[in-house]
Order: sequence, then structure tokens, then C-alpha cells
Amino acid sequence: MDLIKNGWFTEVSTLWPGQSMSLKVEEVLIHEQSAFQDVLVFKSTNYGNVLVLDGVIQVTERDEFSYQEMIVHIPMNSHPNPKRVLIVGGGDGGAAREVLKHDIDEVVMCEIDKKVIEVSKKYLPSLAVSFADPRLTVHIGDGFEFMKKNQEAFDVIITDSSDPVGPAESLFQKSYFDLLKSALRPGGIVSSQGECLWLHLDIITNMQDFCKGVFPVVDYAYCTIPTYPSGQIGFTLCSLNPETNFKEPVREWGESQTKLHKLRYYNSAIHRAAFVLPEFARKAFKKESV
Amino acid sequence: MDLIKNGWFTEVSTLWPGQSMSLKVEEVLIHEQSAFQDVLVFKSTNYGNVLVLDGVIQVTERDEFSYQEMIVHIPMNSHPNPKRVLIVGGGDGGAAREVLKHDIDEVVMCEIDKKVIEVSKKYLPSLAVSFADPRLTVHIGDGFEFMKKNQEAFDVIITDSSDPVGPAESLFQKSYFDLLKSALRPGGIVSSQGECLWLHLDIITNMQDFCKGVFPVVDYAYCTIPTYPSGQIGFTLCSLNPETNFKEPVREWGESQTKLHKLRYYNSAIHRAAFVLPEFARKAFKKESV
Repeated sequence: MDLIKNGWFTEVSTLWPGQSMSLKVEEVLIHEQSAFQDVLVFKSTNYGNVLVLDGVIQVTERDEFSYQEMIVHIPMNSHPNPKRVLIVGGGDGGAAREVLKHDIDEVVMCEIDKKVIEVSKKYLPSLAVSFADPRLTVHIGDGFEFMKKNQEAFDVIITDSSDPVGPAESLFQKSYFDLLKSALRPGGIVSSQGECLWLHLDIITNMQDFCKGVFPVVDYAYCTIPTYPSGQIGFTLCSLNPETNFKEPVREWGESQTKLHKLRYYNSAIHRAAFVLPEFARKAFKKESV
Repeated sequence: MDLIKNGWFTEVSTLWPGQSMSLKVEEVLIHEQSAFQDVLVFKSTNYGNVLVLDGVIQVTERDEFSYQEMIVHIPMNSHPNPKRVLIVGGGDGGAAREVLKHDIDEVVMCEIDKKVIEVSKKYLPSLAVSFADPRLTVHIGDGFEFMKKNQEAFDVIITDSSDPVGPAESLFQKSYFDLLKSALRPGGIVSSQGECLWLHLDIITNMQDFCKGVFPVVDYAYCTIPTYPSGQIGFTLCSLNPETNFKEPVREWGESQTKLHKLRYYNSAIHRAAFVLPEFARKAFKKESV
């Protein structure tokens, strides 16, 4: 793929027709085809190193923290006592880095593409720092197969996936959420990359609908992140515990915790605010016309 | 300026180095040099008609509502009884459209560039609808000069400006906020385009600082908007009334009001949530290191 022209990387996808984000490239660090996808890492002029899979930005060193902190700390701080955590995808290591800030026994990463882990270790050290932690176990393989063999095993499962085209397509379907449910311990919680309100409100509300057929509690939160399409990304949240209220963290993380954990986006106030939808989205979630 | 290449408009600026947003062009509707700036309107493939000034996207028909609703309804619903309103800039008519949803006596627009009003009337009818309202008075001229002649005249002043390069540069300086203060009636409120947390945290915190030397109450709120740089824009809010708490609207706008006023972004819940800062911004506002 000819992803870089005249010194700029440009992200074009049928998932966001008619718009694209470009980042200026200082140097291409690696560009290879893995067994699953096109893997590119470049050093940008203003966003640090950038990981691109199949032409789509996954991580930049400058803004990755908002996504990683929010996809992890919202579910973790909605569970009273999470001890075993599964990350499906997340081969860059960023989600694991955040999970490891909690008092857990074990986090398992099930990443289908070992090349992602390799390039992260080499080019994204601030994310790959998690691979050195003895509480992290890495399993290279398919998330579906792994969960079928690991039933009722996890308190929290985080799906840190790319978008619903290519290898991650199946992670946005009901059968995947049925499997997530079966891999959870009683009272377990899931948090999945849940797309952008401005671009994919139809996908999001459809996911909310089918998730409500699987879990007693389903919700949606979002954060801002400049290098994801339209500058925003959300999270589909589900709980097996009918008492869960995702909007109200069970653990308050104020100034002392955000300092201790070196948080740059998450705090308890933004946890709560992340669920407040703009009117067009609130109405769509309620099936009202705008 | 060669703003369109290979059928795409690309927004490049020294204000956001190393990144750019592109929109696919269906047809250029007008491209002229006004007395003040380069004025381009094109029909995009996916974002409706797009107004571009000096190469920077000001409005797209698809997402303009979030900015217009938030820059207007947050200050208007923080004032107990706003009757006379001034908009500095805002020649596209969108902010006036939102102001006119309130029970006001008069809104004055002071726009320096009449060409912006002309092209909006022709190509952005859903924004320019406000120009037909008898409560709107349009004054073509410089906002500074206008306010010097109109002291203690307005309950709310909204500065709907472009970024601090070119014609709008002076609108981000303390002398401008001194003048805003003198043009307000007792208890008056201002709301100014306040830049993006992800890009211009230094400009924002500097503005907060000097505004606190002018007004007893100063705050900052933000909204998401895909076609502004990094997908987010904020508002500098100031009040002459020491009792003002911007975070708590004095008028609750729930489902019946959002339906009545055809709101697509603003509601009372998002009004409150718009003040909740991500941790990196919260710390910067408090002069703490991240």
C-alpha cells in the first residue's frame, strides 16, 4: 500500500468516507506485511512514533493515553474486586500497562498478530513497558478460540481491537459478546472498543441492542483522541452483575491516585462525564428522531 | 492559495503543525479574496457545504451544530435573564440562530467581513436562517470599535471568531476582554471561542489567567466537533456576577426544550459535563505538572 506521499501519512478508509487525517512523517521505522495485516510504524514530526495497521492509525505516542486509560479504568473501577483480566488484542501493550496499575493477580493478553507485539517492543517502549511485568501472560492466537477454552475465567475482559473491517470484524458481533459472557466469572465486566458517535452511531446503537440481549447491564462511554477518526472513540460496556452502575465508579480516583498512577486523562470526574451523550446520540440511543 | 488538490481540500496551519484534516470536494461553490481574508465555500461529498476562511474550516453543514449550540446555550443558560446579546464575528449566522431560540429582545451581530454573510446567505441556508429574524441587527465593522461605542449595553457577548492568526488575533488578548467587560451590563456574561485542549493548552491557560484579572468568575468548557483541528473546541466563559456558577445551568433544558429548539448537541446534562477536564488539562489549569 502506498500510505505515505510527499512526506505525509494519510488515513483513508471506507469506514469514514470523504474525510481523512494526515500526519507528517519524519522517518519510516518499519513497514511489513504480517500474517494478518499491513504493519507500519513511522516517526512523526509532532505525534511521536505512530503504529498503523492496514492503513489505520492505532496508536500515537502523543495521544494514546486517553484511549488506553479510558478503555481500562472505566471497567476496572466499575468492578468491586477485579483479580484476573483478559485483554483481547492490545498487542501494543498500552491497555496492559493500564490494567497493571490495579491490584490484580494476572492479566492475560490474547493477541492474534505477534508482529504487533514485536514492533511495539522495538518502537513504542512507553506502551511495551507492560511486557516486563510478571503478572502479564501473553498468548498469541485467536480470541474466540482462547475464550472457548477459558470459560468463567476472568473478572474483566477488555477488547482492544481495530475497526470492524479485516481481522477485527467478528469482534463487533453478537456471537462474540455471547462468548465474552461465557468467559467471565460471576459479576464480570467487559469493555470493548466501541467506535465513534459522530461516525458510526448505527453500529453503536445496534451493538447496544444486541448486548442488552446478552447482559443485564449495558452502557456506552467515550473520550476524545485527536488521531482517531473524527477525534473521538467510545467503549461498549457490559456487566453480568445487575447492580453495576458504570456511571458511578466503585473506586474514587482523585488527585493522589492520578498522581500515583501517572494518569493523564482518567479521573473519577471524567469517568462520570464520559457517559453524558450529546443530544443527537442520546436520542438515537432512545430510538427518538432528532 | 492552492487549497484543493486531487479533489480533496486539506487544512494545513502553523497552529497545528504536523497534522491536517482533509475533506473530499464535490464542487467548489465560491472562492474569492474578500477585503479581509480568503473565502472558500465548497460542497463536500460527506459533510455538506463547507465554509473555509484563510484555509481553515469554519463550518460544515454536518457538524456545525455542536459548536454553535455550545458557544451560545452555555452562556445564555448561565444568565438569569439575557435580553440583549452581542455576537462578535459569527457572520455565518449559526450562533445568531441559536441565540434567537431564547426569549431575547435583540441580538446584534458585529461582523468585520460582509463577504462571510453574503456567502452564508447563499450557500449555508440552515445557518443564515437567522438573518430573516427581526430581532437580529447586523453591523458590519470591527468589534473593538463597536464595543467602544456601546458601553454597558449587553447581557451576553459571544465571540464567534476564527483562530488567533489573521483578523481574529486581537480577540485572544487581555485588552479585548477589558473591552468586553466594559460593553457588558451589570451581571453580564461572555463566551469566546477558546481553542482546543489537545493543541493549545498554553493559550487556554494563559487566557484563563488574564481573564481572572478582569472578571470575578472565569471558566472553560468544551465540545467535540470532527472538522475542527483534533476534533474538539472549547469556550472561554467569564461573568461579571460573582455568584455565577457556569457548571450549573440556571435554566434546565431537558427533552421538551431540546425538541422545541431542535437541539442536536446541547442539553443540560452535556452543559454540566462540558466542564469536566481530562487529567492533563485539569493539572495544567491548576499549574500542576502531569
